[in-house]
Amino acid sequence: MPSTSALPDTGKEAAHVPQYLALRDRIAEGIESGKLAPGGRLPSERQLQLDSGAARGTIREALFQLEAEGLIYRRDRSGWYVSPPPVTYDPTRWAGFMTYVTEQGRTPSTETLSTEEVPAAPAVADIFRVAPGSRLYVVTRRRLIDGRAVLVERITVDPKLAPGLCEHSLNGSLTQILSSHYGLAVVRNRMDMRPCALVKDVADGLGVKAGTPGLLVVRTSLDKQGRVVEYDQEYWRHDSIRVHVDLTVKD
Amino acid sequence: MPSTSALPDTGKEAAHVPQYLALRDRIAEGIESGKLAPGGRLPSERQLQLDSGAARGTIREALFQLEAEGLIYRRDRSGWYVSPPPVTYDPTRWAGFMTYVTEQGRTPSTETLSTEEVPAAPAVADIFRVAPGSRLYVVTRRRLIDGRAVLVERITVDPKLAPGLCEHSLNGSLTQILSSHYGLAVVRNRMDMRPCALVKDVADGLGVKAGTPGLLVVRTSLDKQGRVVEYDQEYWRHDSIRVHVDLTVKD
Repeated sequence: MPSTSALPDTGKEAAHVPQYLALRDRIAEGIESGKLAPGGRLPSERQLQLDSGAARGTIREALFQLEAEGLIYRRDRSGWYVSPPPVTYDPTRWAGFMTYVTEQGRTPSTETLSTEEVPAAPAVADIFRVAPGSRLYVVTRRRLIDGRAVLVERITVDPKLAPGLCEHSLNGSLTQILSSHYGLAVVRNRMDMRPCALVKDVADGLGVKAGTPGLLVVRTSLDKQGRVVEYDQEYWRHDSIRVHVDLTVKD
Repeated sequence: MPSTSALPDTGKEAAHVPQYLALRDRIAEGIESGKLAPGGRLPSERQLQLDSGAARGTIREALFQLEAEGLIYRRDRSGWYVSPPPVTYDPTRWAGFMTYVTEQGRTPSTETLSTEEVPAAPAVADIFRVAPGSRLYVVTRRRLIDGRAVLVERITVDPKLAPGLCEHSLNGSLTQILSSHYGLAVVRNRMDMRPCALVKDVADGLGVKAGTPGLLVVRTSLDKQGRVVEYDQEYWRHDSIRVHVDLTVKD
């Protein structure tokens, strides 16, 4: 039962392409054409070796390359799997996680990991324009797409604006709760995105190794008076998000 | 000569903060306050150990955390340095690398690493709407800010639109050359950004270890007729770019 059927035969290969990249391309084409389905298991490294005749080191280089690109991922000791497609996030649109994940035919869910009241560190105090050490709510949540954890977030809210917030169920849209229960309406979103390495706490929450690449999305939501309603630090798995912006010249 | 002077004394620490995070905060505050200057060398691990009384493992955890956040970086064997501030990139604005780096008071430069004519792989052929195997120009460049390499990019251009492109000096704005020499005017930019791990070739070009987190920015530039003028894959160091979008509700 040759598993090569999953790998398209590209026929001739350009002479100057290193062997591991040629193999990477064959597997990537198998994924892009749908022969290797999202969530599906790749042939074992041993099988890939038999199919391609390449050395073990070459196979591993090809797999690491695909992992770096987010096309495949490892499950502890059980081998390599095709990554589910990332969700596309357009920062120029007003839409929350629940909305855009659902729009893309996927199923979002949210788990609250902890709610605490903590003294504000100087940098956070600055953002909220309160004295360092003032008490702020910090809600830590994990969000999933089709049951797979894709981000861990730490949301800070000023208890003066939303007293008793942590007594609500926070497994849905926080923006909704802040609006309907506390009359806090967001009119401005400042977003910063930067690639990062996922540190241990976050990596554990996402089931990946510490140091795995991720994306940190920091969102500061303000109301009409310029008060910070939500300060949200989201740590995403690198293979789960794609940021897309389509820009056209205005005539 | 106590180097602790670089580290602000935060006085009381919240009891539940792990020791490595408290140390991380002290160093981060030293950086944010300017006591530790961008490009400057951190006290040695041994010195940090003496100053803080923390164990070697705790010191290293704090440093790895700061590295993951992009605040510090390693130079091979010579220790830890404060990262220069990242440049801010706003994908909703029309501005190229040269422009926004200069606007932020920094000095951009570009080095062309190679120019080749290569047969189009199926995925790229699709983008250019040419037959797989058609010859396309591929220009590989490295871009620097204040002399530090921040990205390696691979730009693909159709020779039919820009014959002889590779005979020009490509160490400036490619968009400018395509416009002034070939009359190709970009009216639309499609941008995709995704975090990634930097693979060996790119990592070597940036002087970092393979597997270091990065940001892949893919830009497809189209002209009025919808032809692809430039297809650009930029691999950024994770500590060198911050994507910023400021969004206000329209009344």
